[in-house]
Amino acid sequence: MAFTLAEIASRFGGRVVGAPQVLIRQVGTLERAGEGQIAFLANPRYRAQLQATRAAAVILAADAEALTPVPRIVCDNPYAYFARVSQLLNPVAAAAPGVQPGAHVAPGARVDRAARVDAGATVEEGATLAAGCWIGAGSFVGQGAQLGEGCRLYPSVVIYPGCRLGARVVLHSGAVIGADGFGIAREAGRWIKIPQIGRVVIGDDVEIGANTTIDRGAIEDTVIEDGVKLDNQIQIGHNCRVGAHTAMAGCVALAGSAVVGRRCTIGAGSIILGHLSICDDTQVSADTVITRSIRAPGTYTGLFPFDEHGSWARNTALVRHLAELAGRVRRLEQQLRQKDQEHG
Amino acid sequence: MAFTLAEIASRFGGRVVGAPQVLIRQVGTLERAGEGQIAFLANPRYRAQLQATRAAAVILAADAEALTPVPRIVCDNPYAYFARVSQLLNPVAAAAPGVQPGAHVAPGARVDRAARVDAGATVEEGATLAAGCWIGAGSFVGQGAQLGEGCRLYPSVVIYPGCRLGARVVLHSGAVIGADGFGIAREAGRWIKIPQIGRVVIGDDVEIGANTTIDRGAIEDTVIEDGVKLDNQIQIGHNCRVGAHTAMAGCVALAGSAVVGRRCTIGAGSIILGHLSICDDTQVSADTVITRSIRAPGTYTGLFPFDEHGSWARNTALVRHLAELAGRVRRLEQQLRQKDQEHG
Amino acid sequence: MAFTLAEIASRFGGRVVGAPQVLIRQVGTLERAGEGQIAFLANPRYRAQLQATRAAAVILAADAEALTPVPRIVCDNPYAYFARVSQLLNPVAAAAPGVQPGAHVAPGARVDRAARVDAGATVEEGATLAAGCWIGAGSFVGQGAQLGEGCRLYPSVVIYPGCRLGARVVLHSGAVIGADGFGIAREAGRWIKIPQIGRVVIGDDVEIGANTTIDRGAIEDTVIEDGVKLDNQIQIGHNCRVGAHTAMAGCVALAGSAVVGRRCTIGAGSIILGHLSICDDTQVSADTVITRSIRAPGTYTGLFPFDEHGSWARNTALVRHLAELAGRVRRLEQQLRQKDQEHG
Repeated sequence: MAFTLAEIASRFGGRVVGAPQVLIRQVGTLERAGEGQIAFLANPRYRAQLQATRAAAVILAADAEALTPVPRIVCDNPYAYFARVSQLLNPVAAAAPGVQPGAHVAPGARVDRAARVDAGATVEEGATLAAGCWIGAGSFVGQGAQLGEGCRLYPSVVIYPGCRLGARVVLHSGAVIGADGFGIAREAGRWIKIPQIGRVVIGDDVEIGANTTIDRGAIEDTVIEDGVKLDNQIQIGHNCRVGAHTAMAGCVALAGSAVVGRRCTIGAGSIILGHLSICDDTQVSADTVITRSIRAPGTYTGLFPFDEHGSWARNTALVRHLAELAGRVRRLEQQLRQKDQEHG
Repeated sequence: MAFTLAEIASRFGGRVVGAPQVLIRQVGTLERAGEGQIAFLANPRYRAQLQATRAAAVILAADAEALTPVPRIVCDNPYAYFARVSQLLNPVAAAAPGVQPGAHVAPGARVDRAARVDAGATVEEGATLAAGCWIGAGSFVGQGAQLGEGCRLYPSVVIYPGCRLGARVVLHSGAVIGADGFGIAREAGRWIKIPQIGRVVIGDDVEIGANTTIDRGAIEDTVIEDGVKLDNQIQIGHNCRVGAHTAMAGCVALAGSAVVGRRCTIGAGSIILGHLSICDDTQVSADTVITRSIRAPGTYTGLFPFDEHGSWARNTALVRHLAELAGRVRRLEQQLRQKDQEHG
Repeated sequence: MAFTLAEIASRFGGRVVGAPQVLIRQVGTLERAGEGQIAFLANPRYRAQLQATRAAAVILAADAEALTPVPRIVCDNPYAYFARVSQLLNPVAAAAPGVQPGAHVAPGARVDRAARVDAGATVEEGATLAAGCWIGAGSFVGQGAQLGEGCRLYPSVVIYPGCRLGARVVLHSGAVIGADGFGIAREAGRWIKIPQIGRVVIGDDVEIGANTTIDRGAIEDTVIEDGVKLDNQIQIGHNCRVGAHTAMAGCVALAGSAVVGRRCTIGAGSIILGHLSICDDTQVSADTVITRSIRAPGTYTGLFPFDEHGSWARNTALVRHLAELAGRVRRLEQQLRQKDQEHG
């Protein structure tokens, strides 16, 4: 597959500067791209790489247009543009539809003719797979689960009974959707399990990373809205709601009943405690624990700075004496005030 | 399935106030429950919802009894009572016993007639499944592993060889029990593996969340006592011991040889470092790293507060200068003391 | 299997003190080892246990040689020595080669005659398994993936298409190698996926823990060099590079394009943010977030200390007022300076 710069620009817009007939077969990085490869500049930090690049062409913004003689496409959002070009050059692998030998499909499952189920996968009674679904080897779709058009389950994904996925949902290996939420009640020093009778309901165009877990609701549903993107090893507790087009980096955890708004970004390893709400367009930095609801959009941070071990030890030990230190400062202020009065 | 309030109270105790013949078919939330549904009030924060509820009945404590005219059951522990009612109305799904077509059961495995093994699951030589066990699709029970009565492995659970589970242990999808602990010895800049020859031994009535991992012991066993409840994505290192009826929220990690007492609760994302002991009845808050043994029951916390990014940056930068700040306060105190002596 | 102390010392070196004909059948701990078992002392903390031990023999360093009359092997690195002895006494379980009934091997896969594929496992077109590979039940080896000699995939491991493993790579259950990296570009409030066309390339003698995930590169490869040891539930983002003989404890996360040097150790739960570099021989403590590149070897720490909840609350609240506290100290200093000038 190959496209000229002119063909690419006629599909996706932007302005070609330099030879429009340059042939592009693949994407590459500024640093290593060569003949037939197109790179991009989105971050000013890499301007030096732009000047040294051997790429056949480059995608960049107008303010960097003059920095290279290489054939280029000038556009407003080079990173998004690059994404589209890469999608054009690297279409998602398809496979012939059909239930493959070695797949375990219950007689009462409704599998569209244009869906595919790989060897070792299980589709239970009453589950529905719409056209274009592809269930990878060893994956499991439980009783009555419903998958919209074009869902892709990579190998070893588990969808518990009754969960519902919209169209074009992508689940990477090891993702577990709809396991029981952590609902237990204490009585006389023991735990009594609370049946988890809600479902997980996922919108369209959601992508869920490897080994990410999303628990079913305790009573009502856990909801992931359209266009949400979740990285690997994320944990979403029961009855959470994640708003449309929100993205979360790896290892984030949402405790039960947390509600995250639309178009938020949550940094790696952060935790949202239970029953809290985060408003639309909020950014949470990496390793931040959100301990109260957020009502104003903005960036919120709570990571503790690292240091060379010795300095860390010296400074951090004092955190445990901050109240005492503040008290000493208060006494100094009082003493000085008193002195001022005496000598005033 | 439906029960009157009177029938429920005759099973579980409590006092019925209002119409005892109200028919209950399902549980619901105060906010959304309707006809045939019973809700509960355990947290005073939701009293306003109690007043507006359309639930057919409510479970509550005596101090809230007068706040609603809705038929109600008055009891000491409404949340635990609710758990029992929900269990009554939502019995665990059962399935016909038997080794299903497509399951891989070794000739030397001992599978009770009243156990079930789903398609794609593997049970190896010498493994034992007692009556009522249900091994989900694609799960794996290794050589010589022993499962007590009524264990439930959801799809894609892995039990390594030799591990032992008590009765009624529930493992959610992606849980891995008995993988090698992280035992490596350094020699000349390289790592030598230490064979992990212990097992994982799990008591009765333990529930383990999706994608949680519990490593086998290096020499002796890793032990999870009766009634322990582990949420998703927890990591338990080799040779840990978790005391009976302890509960851990998602993403907790126990480093090797950590010992956690009985009836403890560990908050989401917390870490217990290796070779430490935590006494019975200890509560560890979310995102707390336990760096020394705990000998007195209580609540322990170590999460770092988040803030709006600018405030966070201003304040947190000063953590690295705490030792210096403390020094300045000390000098101020000395100067004032000296002044007092001079002018005293 | 049994060896005399003399036989062990003739294989691995060291000096036998006491009866060289003592027969050793298994390893044990100082605390619990009995007849036929050999224990070790590597940490001075356990000297008391040495004095009470009932082990048949002990491995220790010269400085502890005189502390026990038990037959012993004196050597420089008792822990590494113990690792070798345990490997001798506990050889890795082997299994007959061959594609087992119930395995799904594509006609175009190249499986060496001396490799084994268990029931329920899938090996796709163009995948290559060298001699001695053992693919556990339900594992998946994608199109064109290449596995070197003696690789061991425990049950339920997933290798995405095109990834490459060196020799003797061990992957524990639930590990996912080569899922798509988290590459998304924002445009008008939505996310566009960036195809992840790089691979994961893993060197020789790497061990990867249960439920650990390593994403494929966005454009170029994600690389794990020889001898790297990764514990459970680690997340390695796209385009990371982990240097030879580096070890990471459980639940570590590397964001995209992070580069970790050789012979580093990374403590449990730590995070390395994206596009950073950490030099060779660096030690990162547990629960530390690395937010800038590290250019000098050493130990780096960033964990926030825990405390009894009340003390924690008092002290930690003040972190949010550190800038204000520092300002008050500055004003006190000014006032005192001014006083000195007035009265000076």
